[in-house]
Amino acid sequence: MFFKITHQDSQSGARAGEIQTDHGIIETPIFMPVGTAGTVKAVHQAELKEDIKAQIILGNTYHLYLRPGLDTIEKAGGLHKFNGWDKPILTDSGGYQVYSLSDRRKIKEEGATFSSHIDGSKHLFTPENVMDIQRTIGADIIMAFDECTPYPCDYKYAKNSMDMTHRWLKRCCSRFDTTEPKYGYNQTLFPIVQGSVYKDLRAKSAEFIASMNREGNAIGGLSVGEPAEDMYAMTEVVTAILPKDKPRYLMGVGTPVNLLESIALGIDMFDCVMPTRNARNGMLFTSQGIVNIRNEKWKNDFSAIDPALPSFLNDYYTKAYLRHLIISKEILGAQIASIQNLTFYLWLMKEAREQIKQNTFASWKPKMIKQISNRL
Amino acid sequence: MFFKITHQDSQSGARAGEIQTDHGIIETPIFMPVGTAGTVKAVHQAELKEDIKAQIILGNTYHLYLRPGLDTIEKAGGLHKFNGWDKPILTDSGGYQVYSLSDRRKIKEEGATFSSHIDGSKHLFTPENVMDIQRTIGADIIMAFDECTPYPCDYKYAKNSMDMTHRWLKRCCSRFDTTEPKYGYNQTLFPIVQGSVYKDLRAKSAEFIASMNREGNAIGGLSVGEPAEDMYAMTEVVTAILPKDKPRYLMGVGTPVNLLESIALGIDMFDCVMPTRNARNGMLFTSQGIVNIRNEKWKNDFSAIDPALPSFLNDYYTKAYLRHLIISKEILGAQIASIQNLTFYLWLMKEAREQIKQNTFASWKPKMIKQISNRL
Repeated sequence: MFFKITHQDSQSGARAGEIQTDHGIIETPIFMPVGTAGTVKAVHQAELKEDIKAQIILGNTYHLYLRPGLDTIEKAGGLHKFNGWDKPILTDSGGYQVYSLSDRRKIKEEGATFSSHIDGSKHLFTPENVMDIQRTIGADIIMAFDECTPYPCDYKYAKNSMDMTHRWLKRCCSRFDTTEPKYGYNQTLFPIVQGSVYKDLRAKSAEFIASMNREGNAIGGLSVGEPAEDMYAMTEVVTAILPKDKPRYLMGVGTPVNLLESIALGIDMFDCVMPTRNARNGMLFTSQGIVNIRNEKWKNDFSAIDPALPSFLNDYYTKAYLRHLIISKEILGAQIASIQNLTFYLWLMKEAREQIKQNTFASWKPKMIKQISNRL
Repeated sequence: MFFKITHQDSQSGARAGEIQTDHGIIETPIFMPVGTAGTVKAVHQAELKEDIKAQIILGNTYHLYLRPGLDTIEKAGGLHKFNGWDKPILTDSGGYQVYSLSDRRKIKEEGATFSSHIDGSKHLFTPENVMDIQRTIGADIIMAFDECTPYPCDYKYAKNSMDMTHRWLKRCCSRFDTTEPKYGYNQTLFPIVQGSVYKDLRAKSAEFIASMNREGNAIGGLSVGEPAEDMYAMTEVVTAILPKDKPRYLMGVGTPVNLLESIALGIDMFDCVMPTRNARNGMLFTSQGIVNIRNEKWKNDFSAIDPALPSFLNDYYTKAYLRHLIISKEILGAQIASIQNLTFYLWLMKEAREQIKQNTFASWKPKMIKQISNRL
């Protein structure tokens, strides 16, 4: 993996760059659509590539490990071959899913035991086997196995958890560095900063993560319920410490506004289920603001969903039609809304890159935030 | 509407033709994907047109009348404008849906009262207002309001019901002929033959329907549980009587084999929810036979779903991936399987047309039936 920063905004931490992988180049800042079980819900691979213009998608280690299982993925020749997505893939480590299972899991030094949400079967994730699993899935970017702390989280728990995440990271690196990719292309490992909402812990964790000297770094344990100011404050502490010349990935974030604010703090990569999950509930992100398409006001609105956005949706569909589909629980409603929201997220990242390149990001950001925060 | 038969098979009743409408030409024999609530479930309009190559789709009067409602459809400028489908649309009359409601409806001479499956509200469909509703929906082909008899159905009920359907038809024609299209393009009305599985009733009904001299005719009340032999026998009785120079539409039919057998009897048009409904349950129709994609045998089968069929699906997806999606209840599974089944149905109709044109339909049919009946 090779990362180069092509432009640095002079008035903020924002930067534009390129991550080169064996599955192609990722332009940063970038948003990565979440493909939990090897599919970005309700979206065809061709639409992701040609319409939404996604450059990298996520897969979830926990979900893919349980279903279809490693045997099938390995026989397919890796996840890219299995799901027909030939651009880069990042897999999360399963740490977040295991954390979400709350009463179905137990975390100890060795790793995390959990029972499957599908059939209740018992499993153990360790730093070592999570590296092996991600090798087998065949992600271009592999995430370290960490503990994602809840919010709120007392200082002592946060510190102990962070220390364990650091010990786990050493085990991850050691396993990763002594194993080989399975499918002939390179894989890289990103460690994850933890430390809850405590500045000193975040700083300590960032220093430790930086010292591991991997090709990219991530910030985890945010966007789990804490106020946005805390999230930005933690991100600022961490980005000041993480090396400038490596991509920084803020995990699980977030709203379009969160993305722009975090780009200003020096974040390069994002992922979040929000655009697709909210789409299925009828909440649309558009270039002109937020739309609750279930609202009566759209009943007879025959205008395009987001005319300012380049999308094939404009050639076929209107707000009134999409409202009808969502209210009628028609699958096509989830399809259209998901494409809209992802197209918007990717468009917003492209606009941000352009503004950074023209050194106008700092003045553009507040205007764009106002525009897209509008409740239509 | 204008219909011309371009080829007549010399060894069967099969014929190839063209129906010309103000929204374009429909080549027959044709299968019409069902778009109940103004959407063919899980399929984008662009996919219907460019990938599946649908030439006409169905809408359901009952569903569209309840949701989004006539006010919205009329303000949109008709269903084509509302749902972004600019090729021909046929609407069923609501008779079949009202019949399906069983304990929620009451049929009398005036019409059918029923309560909405959505909110329990009470409604009355009459031959007259169902014509008005379909005028407002803006279908190119409008269906008469009929009573669809259940199976089994005693002779007396079937006869009385048929007589009422005939009386209703007169009222439909009288209303249709004294009203105008609303959106500047022509609409045409197809009457429906009833008579359950009684040959004398079917003959009598076909004679009555033929005497109304409309531009096309339909056969209803079949594919409601009767043995396939009965369905073919009734179809044969009816097609012998219905005028040769007008399109014949066998409503709600059916399996791919049903289609080929009925084409041989002189049927030109079909609709059925089977390809899309079965798709969502993981049953695939392919050019090589029937696939239950949930079956363990496809778990590690990385071949294309139906390589012999021209489809973009072949560029992205495999049987193993589709199996994973269907088992994981992922929306993309329903999308892919629906496209596969509809692409196959439309491909089969295209093949049938070609065979009729080459006068090889009669020898081709048994071979194709064997091939597509294969359980893979």
